[in-house]
Formats: sequence, C-alpha cells, structure tokens
Amino acid sequence: MLTKEEITDWFKGLQDRICDSLEKADGGAHFEEDQWNRPGGGGGRSRVIRNGNVLEKGGVNFSAVWGKTPEAILKALKLKEADFYATGVSIVLHPINPMVPIIHMNVRYFEMTNGVYWFGGGIDLTPHYVDKADATHFHQRLKQVCDKHDLGYYAKFKSWADDYFFIKHRDETRGIGGIFFDHLKEGQQHSKDEIWSFVKDVGDTFVPIYTHFMTKNHDLAYGEQELQWQQLRRGRYVEFNLVLDKGTKFGLDTNGRIESILMSLPPLAGWEYNYQLVAGSKEAETQDLLIKGLDWTSHD
Amino acid sequence: MLTKEEITDWFKGLQDRICDSLEKADGGAHFEEDQWNRPGGGGGRSRVIRNGNVLEKGGVNFSAVWGKTPEAILKALKLKEADFYATGVSIVLHPINPMVPIIHMNVRYFEMTNGVYWFGGGIDLTPHYVDKADATHFHQRLKQVCDKHDLGYYAKFKSWADDYFFIKHRDETRGIGGIFFDHLKEGQQHSKDEIWSFVKDVGDTFVPIYTHFMTKNHDLAYGEQELQWQQLRRGRYVEFNLVLDKGTKFGLDTNGRIESILMSLPPLAGWEYNYQLVAGSKEAETQDLLIKGLDWTSHD
Repeated sequence: MLTKEEITDWFKGLQDRICDSLEKADGGAHFEEDQWNRPGGGGGRSRVIRNGNVLEKGGVNFSAVWGKTPEAILKALKLKEADFYATGVSIVLHPINPMVPIIHMNVRYFEMTNGVYWFGGGIDLTPHYVDKADATHFHQRLKQVCDKHDLGYYAKFKSWADDYFFIKHRDETRGIGGIFFDHLKEGQQHSKDEIWSFVKDVGDTFVPIYTHFMTKNHDLAYGEQELQWQQLRRGRYVEFNLVLDKGTKFGLDTNGRIESILMSLPPLAGWEYNYQLVAGSKEAETQDLLIKGLDWTSHD
Repeated sequence: MLTKEEITDWFKGLQDRICDSLEKADGGAHFEEDQWNRPGGGGGRSRVIRNGNVLEKGGVNFSAVWGKTPEAILKALKLKEADFYATGVSIVLHPINPMVPIIHMNVRYFEMTNGVYWFGGGIDLTPHYVDKADATHFHQRLKQVCDKHDLGYYAKFKSWADDYFFIKHRDETRGIGGIFFDHLKEGQQHSKDEIWSFVKDVGDTFVPIYTHFMTKNHDLAYGEQELQWQQLRRGRYVEFNLVLDKGTKFGLDTNGRIESILMSLPPLAGWEYNYQLVAGSKEAETQDLLIKGLDWTSHD
C-alpha cells in the first residue's frame, strides 16, 4: 500500500533531480539550500538559484509538514479534529531573458488521520511574450501526460488552470495557463496508485518542458523595451501571488516560513500607471492572448 | 450645516493645491489627469506625476462616488438598505532618491442616506532609511495638528497607525507610521464641524511636511547599495498594499478603477530571497526601527 513516507521520499528525489537538471541547463549558478523546521511539526528544504546564465531567480522547494489540522480546513470539510500530513514540491523560475517564460510547478499530497487524503498540483507557463508555437508545444506536452492516465484529464485540468490563474481585477489570465488539479482521490475510475502515478508523471515532465525553453529561447535578442515589458508582466505575477494565490494566502495566514512562501516573487517587478499598448506591437499581441478558453493544443 | 457638497469641493481644492505645490517642489514634471466615471454613480480625477526631478512616480487622487451601499458595509453595521456617498483625496509618492521617504496621505468622508456618516484619514511616512531627526520632525508636526483639536488625538491615532501599517507576515511596520483614524463622528467631545476642521488641517499639513523632505533630502548622495535597498523596501510596500491594505482590498473586490487603486505601487520593486542584513549597517539600523510603539516626538 502506498504510504506517505513513499510519497515524501519520491518528492525529495524529484527536488534533487530537478535541481540537478536546472543547474546543468543553466550552466552558471548552483542552488543554495536552507533547511528549516516548522514549530508545529515537520519542515523543508528550500533551494534557490540566483544570477545564473539563464535563471535570474528561482526556487525549488520541498516540504513535509504535519500537526493539528487547521480549523479552517476541518470546518470546510465538516470534519472533527484530526492530525494532518502534507508534503510537496513547489517551483517558480524567473529567467533573465524576457523571451524565456516564467514557469510554475507544484505537486502535493495531503492526508489526515481520519483517512481523508488528496493529491493536487499542476504546471503553468507565464511567457512575457506569448510565442504561439511555444504555447502549443507546452500544452501538447501536458496533454500527452494527461492522456496517458485519463482522456478526460487534460480538458478538465486545463480549464481549471484557466480559472485558477485568472487575475480578476485585471480581467486577464496570468499567462497561457497549463494544468491545475486539486482534491484528486480514488474513485470509480482510478485507484490511489493510479492517481499517484499521474502525479509522478506531472513532476517528471517539468524538466524536459522547461529545459526545452531555456535552451531554445535563451539566446533570442532583446533590449530595453523587452526588459521593461518583462518588469510589468512580473508586476502582474506579484499581483496574482499576493492578492489571489490560495497557497500564498494559506502560508501567510498560518505563519509559514515567509522566505519560502515569497520565494516566488520576482527579483525586480514594475508598475506603470495606465500603460498604453501600441496597436500591433508584440506586447499588444501577448495581451490579447491572456484570456481563458484558448485551445493551444490544436494551434498551428 | 456642513454638506457633502461643501466637503467634496474642499477635497477638490485640496487636490489642486497639493498638485501645484508638489510640481513646484519637484521642478521637473507635471501631473497628468485622467477623469473617470463610476458605472454605479460618481467618479474621480486621478493625477499622476512621473519621472520628475524628485518624484519618480506619484499619484494624487480625488474621487466622489455614490450609489447603493455595498452589502458588506450594511451587514457589518447591521443597517438596512441605504445609498452611500464617499469622497476623499488619496496620495502615494515614490521619490527617486532613496534618502527621500515614501509618503502616503488620505482624507475621506462617507455618509449614508440613513444619517450615518464618518470621517477617516491619516498621513504616514515610509523612509527607505530612517533618519531619526526626520522622524521626530514628522511626528512632531502631526502632533501639533492633532493637539490643536484634541490633546488625546495624537496618542490614539499614532497607535492606530502603528497597528494598521503593520506587515504581520514580516513582523515589521511599513515605515515609521504617523496618524491613522477612521469612523470619526460627532460625540460628547466634538461636533461634526470640529471634526471636519481637524480633517482639513490634516489635509493642509501634507504639503509643508513632504516638501520639507523633498527639499532637504533630495541632494543627499546615494549609490547602488541604496538603490537596491530602496527596491527591497518598495517590495515590502507592495506586500502591505496588496496583502493587507483595506482600501486596496475594497477597491479590488468592488471593481473599482484598477489604475487608480494600484497607482500606489512603486515603479520598480524588488525581492531577494533571505536578504541578510549586515550588523551595524544603515540598513540594519532602519530595520531595527520598523517596530510599533516608538515615541518619535520625544526623540532627541
């Protein structure tokens, strides 16, 4: 039977493999690690890479925490007191070159002593400039991973990502989305082992997807205009993470380790009052594509 | 009898006078104005100054909006349906030179057709580097304004600012505070006219306070180290405004004019993972002063 220890160990290994692969693809900087303990139980390994050849700032976090289940969760689920155990890997990478997209990945497992459990996670991409071929490549890769496990997964989880990574007050998506899933547990169609197999495949697909963009786009030319636009897009990333992201909110509300929670914030972000897009510009083209419901897999 | 029209007109005039004085003190840039209408009723005049000699980005907003009172307010006050009218002036200024502090001011009036009304507002200062003499000057000016109206105001409103501008997840104050007050209405000690007189004095004290710092500190030397620290302090400003500020949250939740609400965000802000202060540095000295309860008025 699948145990939380087995899941935890696999996530630790995933963090190791991802950090190794990113260092190789970056070729310039190495991850630094901070180990931390949670007063209520458990802890984590936060790893950050800075000022590399490709990556300006990136975090690859592993954590496994446990203790009394927060009241809010028990209340929402109408459950009595129970202990919880939560483990996962969480990644945000901010590249130097505005032609390389920002990426986010998370895989996680949650269980309680009353037998309740679920998996969650996803991968989503935030290009500063949307390249349609790149977007199609990204979504096709995710669809392949999903299709291997359930032909209904991709459509469902893609739509979930569109909804989740939507910046309501800007009426725009954070990027071109990806897949997002939560509260995944055994049911009529899949056993716990099958869901775990899917989650592992999501974790394993991160490296080939992102190193592809690192390698392919890092040498593309850019100038002041592209850097300024990158800062504005990063500003929107900050807005999403601080105003809307549930994981961030949960972390801030429950006195999580601040430096690990806010590791996702960019090294430098900008805000310009009433920024005016020039019709027909690359920036305007990107802005027009920050909407829900685009079917990237069939794009030519 | 004091009417909402009289208050509104005075706020409009205050916006005009503040913009004129800031332009003169800046000597480089002029405010641009955007007039906007609110679908539910009312509108505003957003004014922004950019890339001046002293000010890198600043907003001075006037608004007067009305319509159906939001459910959340009625529920909190246990009141039945009523229309509301709200008007005020709101300011955030981000200077170029890290030795010049960020400043925020707000004066506002709210009333409902059921007779309920209140005033709110305040001024608070966020120095990138805390200069003790400047902090004392700032708080003494505020205390003078308060003392003119009520000898209990300063202590009460200073403490309120300490609590309001506290970044819980960082366990630090946003800056050196100032005064903050809300729900101020006539009572045993003051009539509505007297409170209005206090609010006007708060509004009028903004220009002498801030132009003093603009003039005095703008020529102070700074380098890369100071600019980097400025970006980090601005990052904290962003965290406060997006995670904690009630005005911002209300604006985002109620579909306010985004560009006016988020005008307060800095042109450029930074986040560094696990930034380590050097013991004895100017930065460490500032960080140590970002705590509640300091009595700046008596500092020597």
